[in-house]
Formats: sequence, C-alpha cells, structure tokens
Amino acid sequence: MSDELKRGLEGVLVAESELSYIDGSVGKLVYRGYDIGDLAREATYEEVLYLLWHGELPTADELDAFAADLASERAVDDDVLETVATLAEADAEPMAALRTGVSMLGSYDPEADGEPEDLDHSLRQGRRITAKIPTILAAFERARQGEEPVAPDPELSHAGNFLYMLTGVEPDDVAEETFDMALTLHADHGLNASTFTAMVIGSTMADIYSAVVGGIGALSGPLHGGANQDVMETLHEVDASGKDPVKWAKDARANGRRIPGFGHRVYEVKDPRAEILEEKLRDLSESTGDTKWLDYTTAIEEYLTEEGLVEKGIAPNVDFYSGSVYDHLGIPMDMYTPIFAMSRAGGWIAHVLEYQEDNRLIRPRARYTGPEDAEIVPLDER
Amino acid sequence: MSDELKRGLEGVLVAESELSYIDGSVGKLVYRGYDIGDLAREATYEEVLYLLWHGELPTADELDAFAADLASERAVDDDVLETVATLAEADAEPMAALRTGVSMLGSYDPEADGEPEDLDHSLRQGRRITAKIPTILAAFERARQGEEPVAPDPELSHAGNFLYMLTGVEPDDVAEETFDMALTLHADHGLNASTFTAMVIGSTMADIYSAVVGGIGALSGPLHGGANQDVMETLHEVDASGKDPVKWAKDARANGRRIPGFGHRVYEVKDPRAEILEEKLRDLSESTGDTKWLDYTTAIEEYLTEEGLVEKGIAPNVDFYSGSVYDHLGIPMDMYTPIFAMSRAGGWIAHVLEYQEDNRLIRPRARYTGPEDAEIVPLDER
Repeated sequence: MSDELKRGLEGVLVAESELSYIDGSVGKLVYRGYDIGDLAREATYEEVLYLLWHGELPTADELDAFAADLASERAVDDDVLETVATLAEADAEPMAALRTGVSMLGSYDPEADGEPEDLDHSLRQGRRITAKIPTILAAFERARQGEEPVAPDPELSHAGNFLYMLTGVEPDDVAEETFDMALTLHADHGLNASTFTAMVIGSTMADIYSAVVGGIGALSGPLHGGANQDVMETLHEVDASGKDPVKWAKDARANGRRIPGFGHRVYEVKDPRAEILEEKLRDLSESTGDTKWLDYTTAIEEYLTEEGLVEKGIAPNVDFYSGSVYDHLGIPMDMYTPIFAMSRAGGWIAHVLEYQEDNRLIRPRARYTGPEDAEIVPLDER
Repeated sequence: MSDELKRGLEGVLVAESELSYIDGSVGKLVYRGYDIGDLAREATYEEVLYLLWHGELPTADELDAFAADLASERAVDDDVLETVATLAEADAEPMAALRTGVSMLGSYDPEADGEPEDLDHSLRQGRRITAKIPTILAAFERARQGEEPVAPDPELSHAGNFLYMLTGVEPDDVAEETFDMALTLHADHGLNASTFTAMVIGSTMADIYSAVVGGIGALSGPLHGGANQDVMETLHEVDASGKDPVKWAKDARANGRRIPGFGHRVYEVKDPRAEILEEKLRDLSESTGDTKWLDYTTAIEEYLTEEGLVEKGIAPNVDFYSGSVYDHLGIPMDMYTPIFAMSRAGGWIAHVLEYQEDNRLIRPRARYTGPEDAEIVPLDER
C-alpha cells in the first residue's frame, strides 16, 4: 500500500493488454500491433472486431463465417423495439435510450443463463450486442421521425446496414466505406473511462450486458463521448455568425473560449484518427461539392497551428473531424455519441474478456478524511 | 508513472472520501464517523441517507422534510412499469430488470435535461432514483406472481413501504425495523466494485442515472453482490441433505468446497454488519418460533471457529446472516441482490457527488503486451 493519492488513476497500470497501444508523443495508435491507419484503409470493421476478439486478422473463410454470424444476429426482439419506440416518444436522449435498450436486450439473450466463467459464452453474447446496437439506434431514430423500423439486411456490411436501417436507402460506396472507417477508428483506445468502466463491472464476473451498459453510461458523459457533437455545434455556430472562421476563432479565444476538438489527454501531436478522417472529409466534400465544413475546419486548424497551439500539444483530435464526416453521411448530431458507442462496444467486449481470463476484482481504496468516533445525538435533541 | 502493475487496484488510493471508513483488522465500519452498529440501532435508513448525502444527521424538522420528499417521489411512470412487467413476463433476472428499469427512469426524470455540473440537480435525481427503486422491484416481483403493482404508501417508511408494496400487507414493527436495519447496514462500504464503477462513470460527468445503472451492473456480478443468495442456497442444501449442519460442513470441506458467507477481502475478523444481523436473526427466530436457519448458521459458525478458520480471518461476513433474515421477512431469494442495490444506491449516489465536487476523469493505463509493427497481409493471401 502506498499513501500517495492517484487522482484520476493517471499513469496507474491496472492491467496488461494486447489490444491497443497509444504513443501519444508521436501520434501512434495500434490494435494488436497493426497501425490504425492501415486498419482503417485496408480492413473492414468486421475484420477489426475479429482481430480484437480472436487475436488475429481472419482468413477469408473465417471472415465469411464471422460476418455471417454477426449479420444473422441483427434482429431485435419486438419487446425491446417497443420500449425503444416508447422512449423515442418520451423524447429520450439517444444515449439513454441505447443504455436502456441494450440493458433490456440482456433479458432476451438466448443464453441469458450461462456461466459467467464461460468466456466463449460471453463472447457470443458480446457478438449479439454488437450486432444489435445498430438496429436499436436506427429504430430509435426512425421512431423519432414517426417511421417504422427498417429490418436489417444481412447482405449488407455492418457499416452499410446501419446506414440503410437509418435512412431506408442503401448507402453508396463512399458513404459505406467512410462509415466503416469511422467504426474502425473508434473501436478501441486503451483504458479510456468507458472501457475501464466495462472492465470494473466485468471484474465482478457480471455478464457482458452489464459491462456494455456501464460503458454506454460512461461514454454518455460530456468529458468522454460528447466532444464531436460539440465540434459540430461549434461549426454551426461559426456558420450562423456569418464571420470568417478565423475571425470567429480569434474572437472566441479572445473571449476565453476553448475551441472543441483540440487537445487530448493522451496525444501530444495530431491524433492519428484525425488524419484519416480529414482525408475522408476531403473525399466526401469533393464528391458532393459541399466543402463548407471542410473549409471551416481547415481554416480553424491552420489558424490554431499558426498560433502555436498545435506545437504545444493542443492538436486536432478525432472529434474535430468526425462530426463533419457524419454530417455528410446524413446522421443527426445527437446520434454521434451513440455511433461512437456502436463502434467502441467492440473494444469494451474485447477488454472485458481479456481481463476476465485472469480476473481480479477491481477494488481500490479511498483515503478517509471524515470525522472519527462520532456519537449519535438522539433525534429530539439535535 | 510507475511500471508496477496494480492488479485489482488493491491498496491504490484513488480519492479522498468522508463517507465511510473500514478498519478490517478490528471489524469496524463507520459512516461519516458514526459506528455502523449505532446507526443501525439508533437511526433509520432515511437518516442514514441524509447523513451520507448532506454530511450530518438531520434535525427532526430536516428529517421530516427529507422523508416527505423521498416518499413523494416513489411513484414510477406507467411506461416504465409496463416495461418492468414485460421483463417479468420474459422471465428476466431481477438484477437485469432493475438495471433496465432504472436506466429507463432516466428518460422520465422531470429534470432530465439538467447540467451535469449542477450537483444539487444530480442529488435531486439521485433522491428520485432511491425513492423509485423499491417501487420498481416490488412491481417486478408482483408481476412475476401475476399480480398488479401495489401503489406506494407515503405514510410508511422507506423500509416499511417496500415490504408493503412487495406483499400488499403492512409489515409488523419487527419486520419493518429489521429491514430498515438491513438497508442501513448495506448503504455504504468504501470503494467496493459497484461504488467504484459509479464513480468512474460519474467522473465523465455522465448523469447519476448512468452511474447507478453501472453500479447495479457491477453488483450483479457473482464476485460482488450475489453471496447472500449463495448462503441461502447452501442452507437449503444443508436442509435437503437431512444431515446435521456440522456434519454437512465437514463433508463439504472434505470435498474442497468453500462455505459461502465466510471471509471478506476487507475484514480479517467478523464483519460488524454480521454481528448486527445475527442479533436480528435471533429476534426474528424467537418471535416466529422458527429457529431452523438460526440453528444452522450458529452450528456452522461454531464449527468453523473451532476449526480455526475465523482466527485466520475467514470470519462470517454480512452475507452469512442477511439471507436468513430476508427469508424470515418473506423475500424471495433472487431478490436479495436487488435489495442490496436498493440500499447501496444511497452510497453510490453519495460517492459520485462527493467525487464530482473535485472531479478528475478516471483513466488508468494498461501495460501493452501485444505485438509491435504488424503488417496487414491482404485478405486473399492470409
């Protein structure tokens, strides 16, 4: 035991992991040794899930079987869809609806009674959760629009099927590929707060539904998952101001405002995920001819670079670009964090299962700073 | 940064807290300086909630206002009750139903859109959660029995009203007092895994619903909340075996079985909560004339004491007695962990709010042990 307080557990090593590695000083992120840029460009989200969950990239046959299994699990029980529709009617926050929907799914899992020590069983449950999250989210969004849910199409990829269920229209190749990349980029990122939440829950040998539900709750926090929505709101604010984006950013800074999408606890240089999404934003902007968000983000990034912020480590992070990309894909702003959860569920599940292989209940200490030896004064004498 | 791996974060100080202190070497537990035995015997659960949330025991006027507020918040929206009934019909695990019910409640909170930094707002939400958990649990249990929910009675105490909603009959004084004590005994216990889960979620400034939902998930794990159910199942097994309990325990140990309800990561001597529940089990057994569980637990404890286990720190913990007490109160076995959650919610909320007062995002590290510099082999060449 040490008497040193580890605020935020910063720097504290709580586990060993083969899943992801971040070198924030050079902007490097790998999943099981593979560079995030290579994975985003050369592998699908299904391959990345397989890599995270099974330790290696799949062969073509393994991938076919895995993707077919995943696609076959997309349907969600009517009871759960009804609750999701009820939540949409009650004007629920999408993250709260997702938290409730995934929690409820747990009671409909065909293997709800399995042994928590059976990690294969937990992995099958995790695969079901991952398959069904897009269905829940799309059904919720459509219910808000007064539309019936679109049934999943098992012929489509995980990314393509979500966009299809959301809009009712099959996405084109650029949209599908871009969204698939975004899923890959967000799938894992060390022991961030939501992943760590899932691990703490998993360390009690609770089921994987509890772990994922906890992860969703943590990700819903404004200090964790909400930043890409903040960026998008800021870009809309720039637009509404009628100002040149650089002028807007100067004024904002003069008023002491922090520009969202810059700086990250882990990265001292530009987030490698931002590099890739910037490319895709460029592609989407060129293919649609709508370069507004690209122009704004580029201008603001150039201005903050000139001002020396990037050099000081306040560099663009993944959230600086993902919002603009999602906007091009027609995704509503308050679905950005749920989409983050859709992707990160893969990482949560991988970390919980890896931790449970050599499990130890996670139970830190608090330094007690309260009173000693207090005596109860009877109620009528207080 | 240290390169030492802190497995299970054992001994790691993650926060300062005035809420509870445990001295496992002498079997001492205090809430804000008050001995747990004094609180259980001399204060109600409502007073304990007030103590945990507001820092001091209430005056009579403060207690009246607080208890009235709490009682006025017991009703649960029909949409949530419908989902709870649907879950009962789907044969959901009670902890999974509670997790879903509390998560859904969040979307019906009259202040669902509040600012996460407003801790008074979060405390009001926490009070609503605490008020409504018994209503959800009782409705779930009654739905399983094919019965309509019993509406809460604001004239009854938190403990008494739960037993009333569960059974439809007002409990007698011994039952109410005993259940109130059990709630007090389970309300807080340092940074156990569910409390820590709630804190990690709260550290993202997620709302208090997310934190409590995470706590419920963690508590559902067999390494955390399920032990009193294990004890009760064991006592039933002893009963069914027809053996003398000491003979049963000897045989079980000879077969390498661990007797549940003995030993605790924190206590080296008899758990102070076990002392109090043992008294209450004695009272209940005498008042009903049914001494079976008391006889069994006493015999097993005496035997394990003679065998030297208790001296080695494998002493009775709170779970060794709580099951028998709940059985006397007519509570079904799979509701024991949900009842634990009903009580501990008070502690979760207190810890989250205390942590958020001087918040720091909780984000530890993992030591990366995976491959370096892996190159993607094209799919058709794998």
